[in-house]
Amino acid sequence: MMLMNCYNHSPATATTSSDLCWKKTICNNNPYSLPLISRNDPHRGRHRRGARARPNNHCPRRRRCPGLSLVCSVAPPNQVESPVVTSEKPPSNATATRRECFGVFCTTYDLKADEKTKSWKKLINISVSGAAGMISNHLLFKLASGEVFGLDQPIALKLLGSERSLQALEGVAMELEDSLYPLLREVSIGIDPYEVFRDAEWALLIGAKPRGPGMERADLLDINGQIFAEQGKALNAVASPNVKVIVVGNPCNTNALICMKNAPKIPAKNFHALTRLDENRAKCQLALKAGVFYDKVSNMTIWGNHSTTQVPDFLNAKINGKPVKEVITDHKWLEEEFTERIQKRGGVLIQKWGRSSAASTAVSIVDAIRSLITPTPEGDWFSSGVYTNGNPYGIEEDIVFSMPCRSKGDGDYELVKDVIIDDYLRQRIKKSEAELLSEKRCVAHLTGEGVAYCDIREDTMLPGEQ
Amino acid sequence: MMLMNCYNHSPATATTSSDLCWKKTICNNNPYSLPLISRNDPHRGRHRRGARARPNNHCPRRRRCPGLSLVCSVAPPNQVESPVVTSEKPPSNATATRRECFGVFCTTYDLKADEKTKSWKKLINISVSGAAGMISNHLLFKLASGEVFGLDQPIALKLLGSERSLQALEGVAMELEDSLYPLLREVSIGIDPYEVFRDAEWALLIGAKPRGPGMERADLLDINGQIFAEQGKALNAVASPNVKVIVVGNPCNTNALICMKNAPKIPAKNFHALTRLDENRAKCQLALKAGVFYDKVSNMTIWGNHSTTQVPDFLNAKINGKPVKEVITDHKWLEEEFTERIQKRGGVLIQKWGRSSAASTAVSIVDAIRSLITPTPEGDWFSSGVYTNGNPYGIEEDIVFSMPCRSKGDGDYELVKDVIIDDYLRQRIKKSEAELLSEKRCVAHLTGEGVAYCDIREDTMLPGEQ
Repeated sequence: MMLMNCYNHSPATATTSSDLCWKKTICNNNPYSLPLISRNDPHRGRHRRGARARPNNHCPRRRRCPGLSLVCSVAPPNQVESPVVTSEKPPSNATATRRECFGVFCTTYDLKADEKTKSWKKLINISVSGAAGMISNHLLFKLASGEVFGLDQPIALKLLGSERSLQALEGVAMELEDSLYPLLREVSIGIDPYEVFRDAEWALLIGAKPRGPGMERADLLDINGQIFAEQGKALNAVASPNVKVIVVGNPCNTNALICMKNAPKIPAKNFHALTRLDENRAKCQLALKAGVFYDKVSNMTIWGNHSTTQVPDFLNAKINGKPVKEVITDHKWLEEEFTERIQKRGGVLIQKWGRSSAASTAVSIVDAIRSLITPTPEGDWFSSGVYTNGNPYGIEEDIVFSMPCRSKGDGDYELVKDVIIDDYLRQRIKKSEAELLSEKRCVAHLTGEGVAYCDIREDTMLPGEQ
Repeated sequence: MMLMNCYNHSPATATTSSDLCWKKTICNNNPYSLPLISRNDPHRGRHRRGARARPNNHCPRRRRCPGLSLVCSVAPPNQVESPVVTSEKPPSNATATRRECFGVFCTTYDLKADEKTKSWKKLINISVSGAAGMISNHLLFKLASGEVFGLDQPIALKLLGSERSLQALEGVAMELEDSLYPLLREVSIGIDPYEVFRDAEWALLIGAKPRGPGMERADLLDINGQIFAEQGKALNAVASPNVKVIVVGNPCNTNALICMKNAPKIPAKNFHALTRLDENRAKCQLALKAGVFYDKVSNMTIWGNHSTTQVPDFLNAKINGKPVKEVITDHKWLEEEFTERIQKRGGVLIQKWGRSSAASTAVSIVDAIRSLITPTPEGDWFSSGVYTNGNPYGIEEDIVFSMPCRSKGDGDYELVKDVIIDDYLRQRIKKSEAELLSEKRCVAHLTGEGVAYCDIREDTMLPGEQ
């Protein structure tokens, strides 16, 4: 495989126009750059369809950012305003063959010519949004080390940041350079999802706007929903047709739904909302209560929304292969304390540690990916927020709901079907389902289902998140 | 292996006194806790032997820290004041069988009884200081994942913090719990090195006082030297007799020397000062200049001090098996720019990223450990700051100096002997050697060599560190 050579080297080595480096230009008011909306913007409206900060379909100003290469994507205004993609096209100047590379990762190499690397698999493209944040700062190094995809899987990391975070993103890329990971063959950075998601086989969508002071959940749904609508369109236009998408940025279930609805070419089954950290925390709390090591806990489902309405299922979970309720006889604790412990874990961590739990979130993203690329152990399952399309539990269709899944290790999953749901569980699942349905009504303008109507009163964000 | 059960469980499972949990007490003015000296302390003197903040050999006050278990170590005053260990004993109440465990890691388990774990190696103890800091926050998860010591090597992490960082340390332990790493079998936290270093087979000494405003290098040498003298004594008293020690906290070469001098029972060869990040950065810069991928660069030595006087050796380094000077013909760049790029890398990263390069430092610690536990590839070597005792390069004896090393993978190393040193290299090596000798004179009160005399004028700390 020959790649272009575009950094610190003579342009004489670049032979075609597609091999040339990007010019050091930046597109101000880039319609694809974040943040999307300012609170003071007079055009802003919570439920205004596709409300945006003065979309600008040309790039009048350019400024130089030392050492920084950015792409100026220009999309027609109708693509920007349109809530749902019908016949999406990549922006006209985002030539498919161009790439944005960083430093030593622009080097020409040929994996097949080298004895050490010739038995390696084909390089895969992994796009990560929010790449300058703390979760990514843990995750990227795990991806690069081979811990996630294996020691014969070379990878390309394509990092999406915002205009504000681009300097930091360069810092991240420099640290990746200095780590000398043999499997990390390409790193590119940018602020345009139409570039960064190009040919992505995995899209790990971590970036989201944190809630500002006084911001309501409905505001958060709208602001982040717009980011994910945008990114859905970009994935639809430029990613690998079978790209697997894991949404981490909150509110992740509804963000995943919006992203999916804006990417009709990508199978709905490929979209996941991360509830794995909740699953891991639930296993740990059951282990603590039972006085066993956490590797003895299995079959842990998180049902529903990644919010305080989530339902950690102690009815079907097992400890040493036995039902939890047989091992932990303090059922009052299970019913009244267990769930709250999981919900509040992030908040307690912030209190102690002074920051959000970036490291364990990154570990749970690794777990979520591994669960899809390795066969699920016999009799066990894992939780993921997936699209409810023909589910056997009577969950309302057309939302993203966390459920028990199994995988053959091919990147795909199937729902586990033989799970018992009793009245206690059903009642709680219904509450989470109702919440997701009302979140969905709030973002109807972003999923192509008309005018949004938002009646969310309660705040059910998990404490300590972002 | 049966371990005690001391968290969230009934004390009925603990059968002997050594199995009992520590009480939730804290020893204020603990002579072993950090920070050691306040700048405003009238007892403070730069070269006063063993100057300390009012050593207190009893524990008059106790306070409760919810969920926190700390040990109160009481050592006779002469142990605290004495600069160099002669016949060190562990503090009288630090019973060898007691341990400080955290949460789910206090669980009773038996690796040999379980099918999945019975083929695993014997558990190893890894002590980490500065465990609540950012470098550790990356490193601990790498250690726990099996990436460093292998997928059949269960580990115990023993985390050393300061009184100030203990809450954060609990947060770290909680994130480790939530990560469900099967190989991570024990986690303990504490502020007393005589507890935390007990039976350590690896001691990764990351914690050091960062330089405050207006603080001179001599102050930093003294303040950090006292921490490392203390930790050397503790290692001498309670660690495994063959413990491998990697000093990361700066100034790391001289800190390693002080630590070693205070631990006469531990072989001097077991002490390392980390220069691996410099080596990695040097490889990356050579790769960038030559337009090759970094895996083509080998035989990279960093000579001397981990400071701006360090000498990245482009005379002996190779690119694709050829001498660097044959591949990179711009010798002016090699002589004038190359070293500076490595020195300034950390500073540039801080500018871009807003924080120090914790992730790549953690990666380089992993590399340093792996270089000692896996055989060095034929013909190659790695750099480490090691004790100059009978070295073949004419480096002054009795300092810690970075040199080219090889390992059979047994945790030990030998110096590489057939390295060419030309006049250019010799001249630079001499400068770094002179610096280390003057650093050594500054800390004579901490190494047992009498009264310190400090004539360091220049500041040669690497920019961007801590």
